[in-house]
Amino acid sequence: MSTPVSNDYVYALDREFVFHSWSTQGALNPLVIAGGQGCTLWDYDGREYLDFSSQLVNTNIGHQHPKVIAAIVEQASSLVTVAPATANLMRGEAAKRILARAPSHFGKVFFTNAGADANENAMRMARLFTGRDKILSAYRSYHGSTGAAIVATGDPRRVPNEFARGHVHFFNPYLFRSEFHATNEQEECERALQHLRRVIECEGPAAIAAILLESIPGTAGILVPPKGYLAGVRALADEYGILVILDEVMAGFGRTGSWLALDHFDIVPDLICFAKGVNSGYVPAGGVMISKPIAEYFDHHFFPGGLTYSGHPLAMAAIVATLDVMAEEGIVDNARQIGHEVLGPGLQALAAKYPLIGEARGIGLFWALEFISDRKLKTPLAAPLMGQMKAAFQARGLLTFIVENRLHVVPPCIVNAAQVEEALGIFDEVIGEFSGGYMR
Amino acid sequence: MSTPVSNDYVYALDREFVFHSWSTQGALNPLVIAGGQGCTLWDYDGREYLDFSSQLVNTNIGHQHPKVIAAIVEQASSLVTVAPATANLMRGEAAKRILARAPSHFGKVFFTNAGADANENAMRMARLFTGRDKILSAYRSYHGSTGAAIVATGDPRRVPNEFARGHVHFFNPYLFRSEFHATNEQEECERALQHLRRVIECEGPAAIAAILLESIPGTAGILVPPKGYLAGVRALADEYGILVILDEVMAGFGRTGSWLALDHFDIVPDLICFAKGVNSGYVPAGGVMISKPIAEYFDHHFFPGGLTYSGHPLAMAAIVATLDVMAEEGIVDNARQIGHEVLGPGLQALAAKYPLIGEARGIGLFWALEFISDRKLKTPLAAPLMGQMKAAFQARGLLTFIVENRLHVVPPCIVNAAQVEEALGIFDEVIGEFSGGYMR
Repeated sequence: MSTPVSNDYVYALDREFVFHSWSTQGALNPLVIAGGQGCTLWDYDGREYLDFSSQLVNTNIGHQHPKVIAAIVEQASSLVTVAPATANLMRGEAAKRILARAPSHFGKVFFTNAGADANENAMRMARLFTGRDKILSAYRSYHGSTGAAIVATGDPRRVPNEFARGHVHFFNPYLFRSEFHATNEQEECERALQHLRRVIECEGPAAIAAILLESIPGTAGILVPPKGYLAGVRALADEYGILVILDEVMAGFGRTGSWLALDHFDIVPDLICFAKGVNSGYVPAGGVMISKPIAEYFDHHFFPGGLTYSGHPLAMAAIVATLDVMAEEGIVDNARQIGHEVLGPGLQALAAKYPLIGEARGIGLFWALEFISDRKLKTPLAAPLMGQMKAAFQARGLLTFIVENRLHVVPPCIVNAAQVEEALGIFDEVIGEFSGGYMR
Repeated sequence: MSTPVSNDYVYALDREFVFHSWSTQGALNPLVIAGGQGCTLWDYDGREYLDFSSQLVNTNIGHQHPKVIAAIVEQASSLVTVAPATANLMRGEAAKRILARAPSHFGKVFFTNAGADANENAMRMARLFTGRDKILSAYRSYHGSTGAAIVATGDPRRVPNEFARGHVHFFNPYLFRSEFHATNEQEECERALQHLRRVIECEGPAAIAAILLESIPGTAGILVPPKGYLAGVRALADEYGILVILDEVMAGFGRTGSWLALDHFDIVPDLICFAKGVNSGYVPAGGVMISKPIAEYFDHHFFPGGLTYSGHPLAMAAIVATLDVMAEEGIVDNARQIGHEVLGPGLQALAAKYPLIGEARGIGLFWALEFISDRKLKTPLAAPLMGQMKAAFQARGLLTFIVENRLHVVPPCIVNAAQVEEALGIFDEVIGEFSGGYMR
């Protein structure tokens, strides 16, 4: 690179040539990032930021963990890529380690590039295994943004996949804005299960292949399900021969203070989808953990799905190193402890202090503050104000993750108490300023 | 890794824990690969293979190119990953270099994880830009295997994407098995265009957002379109205000002896999808090149699509290095010259020699031999025999890419004349043996 690199140069290059996700391109003002370490990122002027977003809730082990970087460098130097049809050491080691964190009746892993195609393939497996078409999923959910490539494909591999219809959505539990007029967690749970039963009955149980759910819906607002909900979903599914797919893309691998978010609940699913935290996104990867009965079904039945970079060695080496580092360094324990002792209480104190915060909810290092401009109507705080709040955090050197009227508080799982206190202080200051004009 | 690594260890690990693409799992016998360099791969016993598959037609610069590996190592050491919403040096540099190879009215690049989601997002852009729903694509095509994640998603980002219906397939030109009773290339071209016009008329031109086509259909059989076909498609599209999306995932970035396969034809598309060759798959990446009118439309309109690893820095660094290396080392010229002077003539000589070969066709280093068991009926050679042929090549140290009744001859674009002669010799020997029992 002969051009001198500066914030201005990188910004101009981005604005001229790069098209961004989920945006109106003309309205963008992207932050320039030059490097990082741990919970810190910096730009080309050396300005530092404390990362409480984990980027897109994926860098669970923080930025530039030296052992994972070393593993990537080592793999790059021996065999950076190879076709998925081969047998590859890191792919086998990664699958073995992932399955060690799954319930005991899980047998194999199918690797994908990320979370969207993990969900794609889990739904494909469920439809083929059950011979049924419909997939039930929640309105408050996000499962990825793909939806047409195999339907556009002309070759015969299209035919066993022409089932991208039959998607039905139901309401999942969310007491703060209950769809069921519930007034407490237990009531919300019972009514949400009653609603799900009615949807199953009305859609025809024999047509339903699977219920697809995030163990803890993430982008939708970090909606920790009430005690008993997931067990109730499992019981309903069993009653009707329906599979359960848990999407652990955002909640999995340390985020909630356990290896998988499902560990907090009394449920054993049939398929588990993962990405993000499995290797902190150091190299793009995702996948599906497959329970033994489904894995065995495909021993004798053709599986009509696949991708060029399935089990990519570089991504696999990053998974192996990440999971080993997380175990060795107690990163999951750290997430649980810091979340339970520092972050959770701190956020709940802010919610008690400021009427602008309707609710603080979460588990581990997976928390949300929901902002409202009217306590009775629970009116979501307007989007421009949320944007100004994000900018105010950033001006104080804190990177945050804002979704609609919520601040998702999702630092790397290596975060320490001092860093959490620093962020809580900035939250307090900024929310205090914003509260001046509201509800006073 | 404390366990000693051997072929047996890696094979056992794979069979126990890894689920493979497009397969009946119980029937698999994956080859163990330990490392590679250039056109050569090897296992843990030091057994070497000459790679004439480029894995899944993606390692265009060969295995372990030192300059690209060095770029990956350098990027891993400074900033291995960052969120797509930021501005990133390598992302900007990669987009700039990719656009330098596109027609002049292209303005931006949207990066994805691979080819499937590149096509996903190109179709999404076409549908939103035109306000139309239907996508026409060819029966003989492959555009990736995703198709439901956004439909399963419950959050409001689902709504602008609920168009995974309206996919219509037409017949593309393929003189060897003409759908149009044509007897020469010109007739095939004219009749294929006439057929496409009829499909457009019958589906309703005002409902059609785009025609999606591989510039040269790859997995479908390396079907180099007749002169005039793509120009005719463009003219038809223009007549009806339909966009043209060219899928260059397999054919792009050197494979055909030009930077893009569309360079061989008289067509300027509206959107171009890429993956594979853009960085030889060293790190998973793909994307969409966007023409200026469409890029400008999304300056003022929200784009409802995205992904966590869009423009992943490690993948971007690999793109920058790969495209620079390809230019510096004349790799595209090499593909054209070796294809034109050695591989193409050699394969045509085999087709002239063996009745078992129905046709040799291709361009650059993108060739197919189509095997038939009856010259009059053009009966495809049976699948078990193709499997045996692949095994016979492999037993002689040659890795090949077999699809249905075809041998796709797709070595890395750095291949030299001696390596091509070696492979041609093995083809001759094996096809000679197989010819013994057929058509004699």
